[in-house]
Amino acid sequence: MHRIPKNHPRYISLRIRQRMVLGLARGLAAPEGLLAHGRGEAFDYLLGEMTQPEAKRAIRAAAAALLLAERPVISVNGNAASLVPEDLVALARAIPKAVIEVNLFHRTEGRIKKIARELETFSRGKVRILGPGANARLPGLGSQRAKTFRDGMLFADVVLVPLEDGDRAEALKRAKKKVIAIDLNPMSRTARSSDITIVDNIVRAMPLLASEAKKLQNASPSRLKKIITGFDNASNLKRALRRMQGKLPGSRF
Amino acid sequence: MHRIPKNHPRYISLRIRQRMVLGLARGLAAPEGLLAHGRGEAFDYLLGEMTQPEAKRAIRAAAAALLLAERPVISVNGNAASLVPEDLVALARAIPKAVIEVNLFHRTEGRIKKIARELETFSRGKVRILGPGANARLPGLGSQRAKTFRDGMLFADVVLVPLEDGDRAEALKRAKKKVIAIDLNPMSRTARSSDITIVDNIVRAMPLLASEAKKLQNASPSRLKKIITGFDNASNLKRALRRMQGKLPGSRF
Repeated sequence: MHRIPKNHPRYISLRIRQRMVLGLARGLAAPEGLLAHGRGEAFDYLLGEMTQPEAKRAIRAAAAALLLAERPVISVNGNAASLVPEDLVALARAIPKAVIEVNLFHRTEGRIKKIARELETFSRGKVRILGPGANARLPGLGSQRAKTFRDGMLFADVVLVPLEDGDRAEALKRAKKKVIAIDLNPMSRTARSSDITIVDNIVRAMPLLASEAKKLQNASPSRLKKIITGFDNASNLKRALRRMQGKLPGSRF
Repeated sequence: MHRIPKNHPRYISLRIRQRMVLGLARGLAAPEGLLAHGRGEAFDYLLGEMTQPEAKRAIRAAAAALLLAERPVISVNGNAASLVPEDLVALARAIPKAVIEVNLFHRTEGRIKKIARELETFSRGKVRILGPGANARLPGLGSQRAKTFRDGMLFADVVLVPLEDGDRAEALKRAKKKVIAIDLNPMSRTARSSDITIVDNIVRAMPLLASEAKKLQNASPSRLKKIITGFDNASNLKRALRRMQGKLPGSRF
């Protein structure tokens, strides 16, 4: 691991990169995951590397939707496991019915096992984690990528997909799930096809989502429903986009 | 290597990613390089993944500046070597005085050797390649990063730094070099501190730069000087930025 000088203008971003490099070295992340993370970084830069009001609104709606769900599933891939394993478990613990499903773009059973084991070190049996042993298929995806669980995505009503590829996000929508995504690119297929899109860096969004879920844990169903109906994803995405647009000719230039 | 379906909306971009994944597996690229590449990808997306007129103008000026130089140096890092090794050698061959210097952000002698060897397979002795055995230091950089060659960057008058970090680009400027950069982010420190900034994907820009150099090889010095003085980097960067801004609320949304 290389030491990053604290005065480097991209200090925080480079520290987050190190978690990805470590995730690769530990066999949690795939090399392709590092490329995808870098892509997100550029959009984060356009967000000012801060959680914007649009993201906070989406996080609140996401917490309400997860708490209201009958069968909520939190999908975890190699990047999410490298970046925020502890917060993923904290979120799952704050949503009484939630199940974590390890689900990879570049699927190998070895990596699934490692990720499940990593999450287990934080969960210590308190969260149900679906790792190896997929027993179902999600229609409309390639053979490896379709693999899922009957107790996981297949019969879920609400699915949180942090950092998901557009193919799977769209397949989940076709299967009539409510999809919640964390995606730094407000123009991506994932962002556009999801019901609730959190345009933010997962490193900032995930702890906020977990604490929002904790806060709303005892809220009445009618209050949670109200939060969800008050949230308009399309207009929220447009606002996020306009914010990025404003950043482009910004002060750094 | 995973097969990418040809109808995937990001087919070309994902094919380029595979070169980076392969570069990592072969020990040419560092994991951090994959993150940096992904960051560039997002800006390329905002360029429409096409070489824009601003890039073509910068490429022409860059070719002229390299041909006019007394001691031109082409700096090569792990990403450049993974993506366009053959084009880097073709460029060096089109610039009679050019020397290639392998120079890494995350420097290890092993990786420098591998990159030099990779370039040598295309050069076959026809281009001078400075790999291991640095014998000089560029002032203003950390100890590992400062390493260079007397016959390389230290006494160069024009340096092409494709995909360079801002620290080194600025150190080269302080050392009074003419700096040519290839950088997809028009707002980066590298882009802003360079004399000629090619805002384009290196995969597209490098072959164009090599062929432009070949075309201008027999041009008179006065013609080359005219090309350079006719090029305004600051306004060219502003145009590139405006183009990206126009893309943000674009048709994909």
